[in-house]
Amino acid sequence: MADCLNLSRIEIEALLQIEDGFEAIKDAYIAVTDGRCDLPPVGYLGFPAAHGDCHIKYGHIAGDPVFVIKIATGFYDNPLKNLPSSNGIMLALSAKTGQVVAILQDEGFLTDLRTGIGAALATQAGCHSDARRVGVVGTGIQARLQIRCLNALMPDRSLAFSVWGRSEEKMHHLAEDLAPHQILVTVQPDLETLCASADILHTTTSAKAPLICSGWIKDGTHITASGADAPGKQELDSTLTARADLLILDSAVQCIDHGEVAIPAAAGLLSPDRYRTLGKVLSGQQAGRSAPTEITIADLTGLGSQDIVIARAALDAYARHTTTDK
Amino acid sequence: MADCLNLSRIEIEALLQIEDGFEAIKDAYIAVTDGRCDLPPVGYLGFPAAHGDCHIKYGHIAGDPVFVIKIATGFYDNPLKNLPSSNGIMLALSAKTGQVVAILQDEGFLTDLRTGIGAALATQAGCHSDARRVGVVGTGIQARLQIRCLNALMPDRSLAFSVWGRSEEKMHHLAEDLAPHQILVTVQPDLETLCASADILHTTTSAKAPLICSGWIKDGTHITASGADAPGKQELDSTLTARADLLILDSAVQCIDHGEVAIPAAAGLLSPDRYRTLGKVLSGQQAGRSAPTEITIADLTGLGSQDIVIARAALDAYARHTTTDK
Repeated sequence: MADCLNLSRIEIEALLQIEDGFEAIKDAYIAVTDGRCDLPPVGYLGFPAAHGDCHIKYGHIAGDPVFVIKIATGFYDNPLKNLPSSNGIMLALSAKTGQVVAILQDEGFLTDLRTGIGAALATQAGCHSDARRVGVVGTGIQARLQIRCLNALMPDRSLAFSVWGRSEEKMHHLAEDLAPHQILVTVQPDLETLCASADILHTTTSAKAPLICSGWIKDGTHITASGADAPGKQELDSTLTARADLLILDSAVQCIDHGEVAIPAAAGLLSPDRYRTLGKVLSGQQAGRSAPTEITIADLTGLGSQDIVIARAALDAYARHTTTDK
Repeated sequence: MADCLNLSRIEIEALLQIEDGFEAIKDAYIAVTDGRCDLPPVGYLGFPAAHGDCHIKYGHIAGDPVFVIKIATGFYDNPLKNLPSSNGIMLALSAKTGQVVAILQDEGFLTDLRTGIGAALATQAGCHSDARRVGVVGTGIQARLQIRCLNALMPDRSLAFSVWGRSEEKMHHLAEDLAPHQILVTVQPDLETLCASADILHTTTSAKAPLICSGWIKDGTHITASGADAPGKQELDSTLTARADLLILDSAVQCIDHGEVAIPAAAGLLSPDRYRTLGKVLSGQQAGRSAPTEITIADLTGLGSQDIVIARAALDAYARHTTTDK
C-alpha cells in the first residue's frame, strides 16, 4: 500500500491521451463477448432527500494484472452549489495480491473518456468508408469528447464536423473549445439541415422525447446514439430505429432495458435478427455494414469493462511516463 | 475533490483512539435495529487461481454526513510473498454532494478495530457486573485488540487477562506486545484451566472444529465468540451453545447463516426465543443477562454499519486533531 499511486484528475488528463485508449476500449467490448469478463451486478445507494445516487461498478478481465472498482455519484442539486452533478473515483487493485495499486481521483473524467472513445469506435465499425461529414447533436462534454475521439481515431478521413444544440451560445462555446485541438466545428442552428447533410450522426443528449426524425436521415447514414442511458430516454424517433438496416448494441440486455432501442423494442418495432453486438463486430465475429446505402445505428449504454480498461490505460500511461523520465 | 483527505494506516492509527469508537460502534449496532441503515448486499469478486477474493461493503446511516464504501481483500498466498493476507481501503463520500470526502488507506486496521470494539461492547452488555477474570482464546490481532478494547471500555473493573494459544511463543509475544499498553496478560498453556477460571471468555480463532467444551465452562460465564465468520467455522461445542441461557447476536440472519451458532442452529439445538439482538440489548429494547448464574454467549459476525461509523469516527478524530492544532 505504501507504493499506492494516487493521481488527480489534472494529472490523469495530462498523462492519458485519447489515442492510448483505442485498443483498450476495443478490447473491453470484445471481452464481454468472449467470456473474459467478471462483471458482477452494479451496486447502488440512493439519497432521495438529497436528489443523489451512487453506483458502484467493479469487475475483472481475465489475465489483467488489476481489477477495478469505480464509484460514480450523481447529486442533481449540486449545480445550485456551484458543484458538478457528477463525480467519481476509481480504484485499481492487484489481481495477484489484493493490494491497492492506484487511486484515480478522476472526478468522472475516465468515464467521460471511455464513453467518447467507445462512440468513436462504434462509428468506425458502422460507418461507410467514404463517410466524411459528421453531425453532432448536443453541446456538452460528450459532444466535445466524441468529436475529439473521432478525429483522433480516423485522422486520414478529413472529417468535417458540424454541431447543433438548443443554445446558440453553447454551440459557439463548443466550437471555440475545440479550436485549440485543431478541430474546426461548424455551428448549424437547424437540426434538420444538420441531420440531412450528415454521413455520420452522433447524438449525445439526455432527450426524453425523440429529437431526430426518420425523414431527415438519408440512406447510408451511420448514427451513434449514446444519450439514452436510463428508461424513458430516447433521441431517435422509433420509425428511424425501425427503418435502420443494422443495429449495433454494446450490450443487448442493457440497450433493450434502458438504451436508445428500448422504447421501439418494447413497441415490437425491432426484430432480434437485426441486433449485432459491438464486440463481435469489432472482433470480426459478426459482420458490420454490408452496403453503402444501409442505415446503421450504434446504441451505447456503457460497459463495466470499459471502466476496467480505461483505468488500466491510465496506469500504463503513467508507467510509460515514469520510464521515459528516467 | 481537491479537499479530499487521504490518510495512511499509520496516520489513522495515530489519530484514532480506541475510546473514540465506543459510542460510534454502539450506535452502529443500534442503527441496524431501528431502520436507520441502508446496507445493500455485499459485492464480491473471486480470484480462484490466485486464492483471493474481494468484498465490497457499503452503506449509509440516515442522518450521517457521509456514506462509506469499504473494499476488503483476502489473498491467501500473500504470506509466501511476505505480504499480509488481508488488505483494505475505505472511502467516505458526502451524502449531500457525492464528493469524495476521505480516502482511508487503513489496510484493514479500521475493520480490526471496529471488530475489537464490538467484542468489548458485546461483553459489557452480556457479562455479570462482578466479572473480572478474562480468558482470551487465540493470539492474533483480534486477541490483542479485544484485550485492549475491554480494558479501555471497563477501566474500573480491574480486569485480569489470561491468554491461551496453540503456540507458546505466540502467547508470550502477545503478552509482550500488551505490556507497553500497561496491560498484564498471563500466559495459560492449558485451555481447560483458562476456560474454567474465566468469568469472561473471548474466542478469536478460525477454528473449524469446536475448541471449547461445555464441561469446562462454569455457570455465570459470558462468552464473546467472534472467530466464526464463514460457514463451517465453530469455536464452541454445540452442547455449550445449546446450554447457554441467552444468545446475543449482532445479526440473527448472519449468525444463523455463518456465525458461531450456525452449526447448532442447523442441528435444531437452539430455540429462537433465546436469541436477542445486540443492538436491541444495547438500546435497552431487549433485556440482557437476568441472573448471575446465567451463561451468556455473544456471537459476532460483523456489520456493515460498523464500517460506516468507524470511518466516521476516524474523520471526527482528524477534525478534532486539526482544530486542536490551530
